[in-house]
Amino acid sequence: MKTTIKDIARYTGMSVSTVSMALSGKDTRIAAATKQKIFEAAQALNYRRNHLAHALVTKKTRVLGVILPDISNEFFAKIAKGIGYEAEKNDYRIMLLDTNENPNQDLAAINMLVERSVDGILYIHSASGQKNNAAECARLCQAEGIPLVMLDRVPVNTTASAVLVDQEKGGYLAVKHLLDIGHTKIGCITGSLATGSSQARLDGYKKALCEANIIPDKRLLTEGEFHADSGYEHTQTLLDAGATAIFAFNDLIAYGVYRYARDNRLRVPRDFSLMGFDDNNFSEIMETPLTTVHQPTFLLGAAAVKKILEHFDGTNDIETTVFEPHLIIRKSTGPVPMQIDHRRNPYSGTGGADTRG
Amino acid sequence: MKTTIKDIARYTGMSVSTVSMALSGKDTRIAAATKQKIFEAAQALNYRRNHLAHALVTKKTRVLGVILPDISNEFFAKIAKGIGYEAEKNDYRIMLLDTNENPNQDLAAINMLVERSVDGILYIHSASGQKNNAAECARLCQAEGIPLVMLDRVPVNTTASAVLVDQEKGGYLAVKHLLDIGHTKIGCITGSLATGSSQARLDGYKKALCEANIIPDKRLLTEGEFHADSGYEHTQTLLDAGATAIFAFNDLIAYGVYRYARDNRLRVPRDFSLMGFDDNNFSEIMETPLTTVHQPTFLLGAAAVKKILEHFDGTNDIETTVFEPHLIIRKSTGPVPMQIDHRRNPYSGTGGADTRG
Repeated sequence: MKTTIKDIARYTGMSVSTVSMALSGKDTRIAAATKQKIFEAAQALNYRRNHLAHALVTKKTRVLGVILPDISNEFFAKIAKGIGYEAEKNDYRIMLLDTNENPNQDLAAINMLVERSVDGILYIHSASGQKNNAAECARLCQAEGIPLVMLDRVPVNTTASAVLVDQEKGGYLAVKHLLDIGHTKIGCITGSLATGSSQARLDGYKKALCEANIIPDKRLLTEGEFHADSGYEHTQTLLDAGATAIFAFNDLIAYGVYRYARDNRLRVPRDFSLMGFDDNNFSEIMETPLTTVHQPTFLLGAAAVKKILEHFDGTNDIETTVFEPHLIIRKSTGPVPMQIDHRRNPYSGTGGADTRG
Repeated sequence: MKTTIKDIARYTGMSVSTVSMALSGKDTRIAAATKQKIFEAAQALNYRRNHLAHALVTKKTRVLGVILPDISNEFFAKIAKGIGYEAEKNDYRIMLLDTNENPNQDLAAINMLVERSVDGILYIHSASGQKNNAAECARLCQAEGIPLVMLDRVPVNTTASAVLVDQEKGGYLAVKHLLDIGHTKIGCITGSLATGSSQARLDGYKKALCEANIIPDKRLLTEGEFHADSGYEHTQTLLDAGATAIFAFNDLIAYGVYRYARDNRLRVPRDFSLMGFDDNNFSEIMETPLTTVHQPTFLLGAAAVKKILEHFDGTNDIETTVFEPHLIIRKSTGPVPMQIDHRRNPYSGTGGADTRG
C-alpha cells in the first residue's frame, strides 16, 4: 500500500491540511519544528509525492521535451548531456524524441510533447535537402502557449528564443586558417542547406575568401548532408575541380573524406588538407588528428535549459544566446601540395610534401 | 481555450459519456459511424486528450524510464535509439536519465522515475571499479511493483528480465582470432570489473586461452575502465610484459591504445595487434580500421522495449534474451612481430612485418 498524506497525518497527529501544506512547501506559517516532524514521518513511511495529481493541480509537469535529429550523432548526444545535467540540477526530467533527421517527424514530435503536457520544449530541427519545418513547429508551440527554445540550427527570422554557436564565425575561422597556410582552391562539402548552420558556415567561407580577394568558384562548392557517406561521395568531385583543401561542414563528413582518401591511397595532408567542424571526441584520436572548429556542445545544452527556465519565470523576451566557436589546429591541414595529380591511384610519381610527423 | 469533451458533445449532439467512451476506445457497443463522427469532430475542434487526467485514472502514463551510464558514448546512444524507435512505434515516450557512469546516481534515478509514475524502467547500470548498485536497484523496482528490464550489463543472479549480448562468446571470439593468427601473449585491458560484461569477456578470454593450452599470465591482465584514457594508460604495461596483441574490452579503450601507439611511434599491427569490442561507427573509419566484436545495439534497445511490453501485458516471467556477437576482422590485427622491442622509441631496427595495405 502506498503511503498517503492521511497516513502521515495519523502518524504525526496533525491535520491533513497541515501535512499537505508542509509537504508542498506552500505555507510558511507552519513552525519549522512541525515541518521537520512531518518530513521525518514522510521519510520513515516512505511517502512519495504523486507527481501526476500534483501536475494536474499545478498544471506543471516539471518535464522538458527534447527533440533532436539523431542521438547517435555524438554532437547531439553531448548537447543532450548538457540539457540533462542542467535539467536535473533544477529538478526537471527530460522526455526525449529522436526525429531521425526527418523534418516530417518534427511536427509529430511537438504534438506528442504537447499532449504530454511538458512545461517547455528544447528543439533542434531536422533537415533534409532544402527542407525543414522549424518555423511551423515554432508557430505550433506559440499557438499552444508552450515555451520553446531552439538550439544549434536556427532559421533566420525565427520567433523563438535560441541558443547557438556563431556558425558564420566558425566557417570564417576554418577558411581563414586554410588561406593563411597558402590554400586558395578550397573545396566545400556543406551539410543540408536547409539548416541555418550550413548557411551561416557558407557565409563565413565566402567572407574569408572575399577578404582574400578570391571569387568563390561554384565547382568547389558541393551540397551534402551531415554524415560520413556524404564526405566520401563528394571528395573526388572537389579534387577534380582542383581543390587543395577541403572544408567539411562537420566532422562526420570529414571522416567520410578520410575514408575516401584511404580507399584511394591519398594521404591527408600530403595530397590535400582537410578541415572539419564540431570537434567530436574521435577527431583527436585519429591517426591523422583532424583540424576542426570546436563547438561548446555541453554548454549549449545547459544554456538552453537556463533560458527556458527564465521563460517559466515569466520572462517572455525572445532572446538569442550566441557562443563563440574556436579553431583547433591538429595534423590534417598543411601546406599546398607541390604538384597535384588526384587520379584514383596517384602513387606513380606524385606526392608533394608530407608534413606529418 | 482548450477543447474539452463537452465541446465535442455539444458539437456532435451526443452525450458526454458517449464521447468520452468513444475517445478512450473503451466501449465497443458504440456504432462505428457514431465513433467516426466523434473522431472527426475531435480533429476539427483540435481536441487533445489530457494525458495527465487519463494517467491518473488508468494509472498508466505510457512513459518508459530509461537509465543509462553515458549518452555521449555512441554505444549507449545507439541502444537509446533502438529503445526510442520501438517505444514510439507502440505509442510510448521515453524519459531519459544519464548517470555519468556513477553507480551512486542509479538509485536516485530509479526513485525519480518511480515518482514520475513511469510504467516501466529500462536500465543499464553504472559501474566504477568494483562497484555497482544494480541488485539494489532491481530490488527497489520490485518493491515498488514497477516492471524492470536490464540491458547490456547484467549482474549474475539478477532477479529482473534482461536483454544482453553473449559477452563471454564475444571475448572468446576475439581471443580465438588472435590465437589463430599466432599470438600467444595476449594482453587485456578490461572495463570496470563491476560490470557483468567485463567479467564475461574475461571468462571468454580465459576459455580461449585454456583451449589453446595457455595458462593466463597475470602480468598480461590489467583492469581498466570503459574509456579511451584507460587504454592509453595501460598500453605500455602490457607491452613491457611482452604482449604481442592487446584485447581492449571496448572500442573506446582501443582508441586510447591507438593514441598511445601514435604518441610513441608504434604502429598497429606492425608492432602489436589490437582488438576492440562494440564496433562503433568510427572503428571502421580509422586509418587502421579496428578489428572488433560487433554488438547489435539497436536491436538490443528494441528488444528491451518488447520485453517490457510483455510484462505490461501480464507476462511476469523473468527472462533473459541473449543476442549473438560476431567478429569483424579489419586491419588492426596481424601476425606476431618478428622481433619485439617496445621501448618508447623503437624506430632503430625493430619492426616486423607490416601487414597493412
